[in-house]
Amino acid sequence: MKTIRWLFAFLLSICFCWHPKPLLAKKSVEVIDLAVIGGTLVTMDSDYRVIEDGYLAIRGERIVDVGSKAELLRKYSPRRVIDASGKAVLPGLINSHTHAPMVVFRGIADDMLLQEWLEKYIFPAEAKNVSSEMCYWGALAGCYEMIQSGITTYVDMYYFEDACAEATAAAGMRAILGETILDFPAPDNKTPEEAIAYTERFVDKWKGHPLITPAIAPHAPYTVSPEVLVKVREFAQRKDVPVLIHLAETDKEVQEILKRYGARPIAHLDKLGLTSNRLIAAHVVVANDDEIALLARRGVGVAHNPQSNMKLASGVAPVAKMLKAGLAVGLGTDGAASNNDLNLFEEMDTAAKLHKLHNADPTALSARDALTMATIGGARAIHMADEIGSLEKGKRADVILVDLSRMSMQPVYNIYSHLVYAAKASDVHTSIINGQVVMSARRVLRIDEGKLRMKIKALARQISSSLAR
Amino acid sequence: MKTIRWLFAFLLSICFCWHPKPLLAKKSVEVIDLAVIGGTLVTMDSDYRVIEDGYLAIRGERIVDVGSKAELLRKYSPRRVIDASGKAVLPGLINSHTHAPMVVFRGIADDMLLQEWLEKYIFPAEAKNVSSEMCYWGALAGCYEMIQSGITTYVDMYYFEDACAEATAAAGMRAILGETILDFPAPDNKTPEEAIAYTERFVDKWKGHPLITPAIAPHAPYTVSPEVLVKVREFAQRKDVPVLIHLAETDKEVQEILKRYGARPIAHLDKLGLTSNRLIAAHVVVANDDEIALLARRGVGVAHNPQSNMKLASGVAPVAKMLKAGLAVGLGTDGAASNNDLNLFEEMDTAAKLHKLHNADPTALSARDALTMATIGGARAIHMADEIGSLEKGKRADVILVDLSRMSMQPVYNIYSHLVYAAKASDVHTSIINGQVVMSARRVLRIDEGKLRMKIKALARQISSSLAR
Repeated sequence: MKTIRWLFAFLLSICFCWHPKPLLAKKSVEVIDLAVIGGTLVTMDSDYRVIEDGYLAIRGERIVDVGSKAELLRKYSPRRVIDASGKAVLPGLINSHTHAPMVVFRGIADDMLLQEWLEKYIFPAEAKNVSSEMCYWGALAGCYEMIQSGITTYVDMYYFEDACAEATAAAGMRAILGETILDFPAPDNKTPEEAIAYTERFVDKWKGHPLITPAIAPHAPYTVSPEVLVKVREFAQRKDVPVLIHLAETDKEVQEILKRYGARPIAHLDKLGLTSNRLIAAHVVVANDDEIALLARRGVGVAHNPQSNMKLASGVAPVAKMLKAGLAVGLGTDGAASNNDLNLFEEMDTAAKLHKLHNADPTALSARDALTMATIGGARAIHMADEIGSLEKGKRADVILVDLSRMSMQPVYNIYSHLVYAAKASDVHTSIINGQVVMSARRVLRIDEGKLRMKIKALARQISSSLAR
Repeated sequence: MKTIRWLFAFLLSICFCWHPKPLLAKKSVEVIDLAVIGGTLVTMDSDYRVIEDGYLAIRGERIVDVGSKAELLRKYSPRRVIDASGKAVLPGLINSHTHAPMVVFRGIADDMLLQEWLEKYIFPAEAKNVSSEMCYWGALAGCYEMIQSGITTYVDMYYFEDACAEATAAAGMRAILGETILDFPAPDNKTPEEAIAYTERFVDKWKGHPLITPAIAPHAPYTVSPEVLVKVREFAQRKDVPVLIHLAETDKEVQEILKRYGARPIAHLDKLGLTSNRLIAAHVVVANDDEIALLARRGVGVAHNPQSNMKLASGVAPVAKMLKAGLAVGLGTDGAASNNDLNLFEEMDTAAKLHKLHNADPTALSARDALTMATIGGARAIHMADEIGSLEKGKRADVILVDLSRMSMQPVYNIYSHLVYAAKASDVHTSIINGQVVMSARRVLRIDEGKLRMKIKALARQISSSLAR
């Protein structure tokens, strides 16, 4: 009996002392925060690697490894696992131009001439309704919509950008937020000097934030004088921030600037020293070969907004030429008042189709080209390609999972064709920004939807009655 | 005590004998099968009536009344009620041109020249894979996708249309199904004579079916000789069926037909007697003012496919001019191999934007115009405007409910703008075709999704390996 007791105690001591950890340690299993396992990794790296049954390792804010499940499963010990089987895993989409708070004006006025649209509807609606509170809730609603459509980074140009920054940080989104500078009184600042002073406080508050990049946004060459544009350039250099502008959007603008300043908009900005790798220029619809070459040489980034340009009948930006010239081009949705949603899946689809039509050549812009513009190309255009835009070791962990299981996504022959021509924003299942899961199974996790709906309804009532007056 | 007992018996007898029915009968409550109550009725009738908090009464296959809830609630006693509050109620969308079974080829080849696309991919894939079984399951998958995107009627042109008809009837969808006639051997029939004989059997089998309208579909002026086109015309007159054709899709076609027959495609068909109110012509991208006037005079219907025309770089159909000339124009998705889904919400959005751009005028085609083309305008284009296309007394009960509650649909200022520029196919909640509910809460009721998925997967495997050989 005593022998059996001793034997039992001996066996028990073995059980307590020995366990597999030391063995695993020899194989050096690394602890990571999050692993996205399975699914098709569409990396958008320089080799356009597509990895079936992939493994994406995330620690803190960054991607630490990208490979196949077979290769990486034993290398890492993740604290949390997201199963991506049946899904495409891709870099989060980048919306390179929008006015997020304008979602509250979605559909107040469509199908009319630009002048009438602006003067009868948008300007009065803005004058009567734009406030810090409206910008906070509008931007939050914009973030909600963008997260649900797979956008993880956006570039904004509006008023009260400090309120937009608060909303964006609360939503857990990444953004470059540009405070608008105008010659005439805006809803937040009455003079360009006031606006620059506001921007200085805004930049000082947010610079260095892991998600928010504050910026300065002179509205357009036709609404900001050369003197103010020079001040903007000096400010941007001094504070080391990006500059956002609407540029060469219509023929009318080009003629107007040529008449006023003796140079077309791009040359005009160049003379003022604004064309640099700090500049993100929205639209650039009207640009000849020399202007494209100049922008490429200066390292300017372009935000192409195909649906907005079509809806406002502005024209077609020469995107195929721009890409050939090595100019960095991203995709933008523009504001929801012009276009009427914040949906980059539709912009990708439209961009590919529009430039095939425009060039009378179905090879002019492929599905992969369109997805590039929405990811790594967009990252280049907004001067953040070192940080985001592809699934690569060392980059910020901005990742989306797109469900491929919907009946009308069957069968999948070519992942790029499917993502651009067949997938919808509503197929986005999960979104990770800066290593944090911000949407899971389409539930946006950091926004109180009920409260947001209530606030948007109240704003809509206020806007409707303000226009009726 | 006795008095009380008598009183009780007396009161009881009153309760049993008197009840409100006779009174209601005096007000003549009509029994109906289905009422859609609440929501915003977007009737698309000749006055473009929009009725808030509406009431749609359906008996059997038809709409028997349309009005406000306040007006009609007491008039009808419905066997079944669908609550439409928070939703838009509109006529089911009409897809005026597609090749439904081609969903199985979705994405096998994109972003290439038409010749390469056809000769290297589509024709070989079709030659090796198109069978009666493939057409049945492909058409069923197409119906599934179309029902989920709010389409209730479609116009098809493909092979083995008898199998397509079986699938469509099983899904509970309405369709005009055109058996393809070609000069060269097709997957189902080796000569045009065989194809016409097949079509005769097909027409005899399906004519008079409540959902299916059989038709004959000479592929195009460049693939069907004048002699065969004359036979087709005679057949269509004899059997009283619609004629579907691809017409004037590209400049190349126009030049080719002009060279071969000394007339451009529209004049060529006119000489052969095919331009009549029986004809549904797909594309019509290349048409001058005289040709538009001719088509309008003859009562031809046009199926406009904006996304397909863009993706294949065919050009822009002069739709604004066509509508001005009184020509009936509907919207089509084309096949999923070219475009790559069966989604009329995207076609509406694209149509409005494309024609604004093309005409350099943001008023050229409004949201309401686009919705018209997808509903009553489409019904006119396919010569069924007496039966479908609007919510009106006496018409077939083809009705969809579009959920307006999604966060990014808030706020709603203008119902047409919202339906065309902001709503997505995935917002379609309920679909009623010919008085029958075929989708409820996005569940397609008459199709076994599991079995369909299995069949489509098997077909995809077969197609992939056939192309690899």
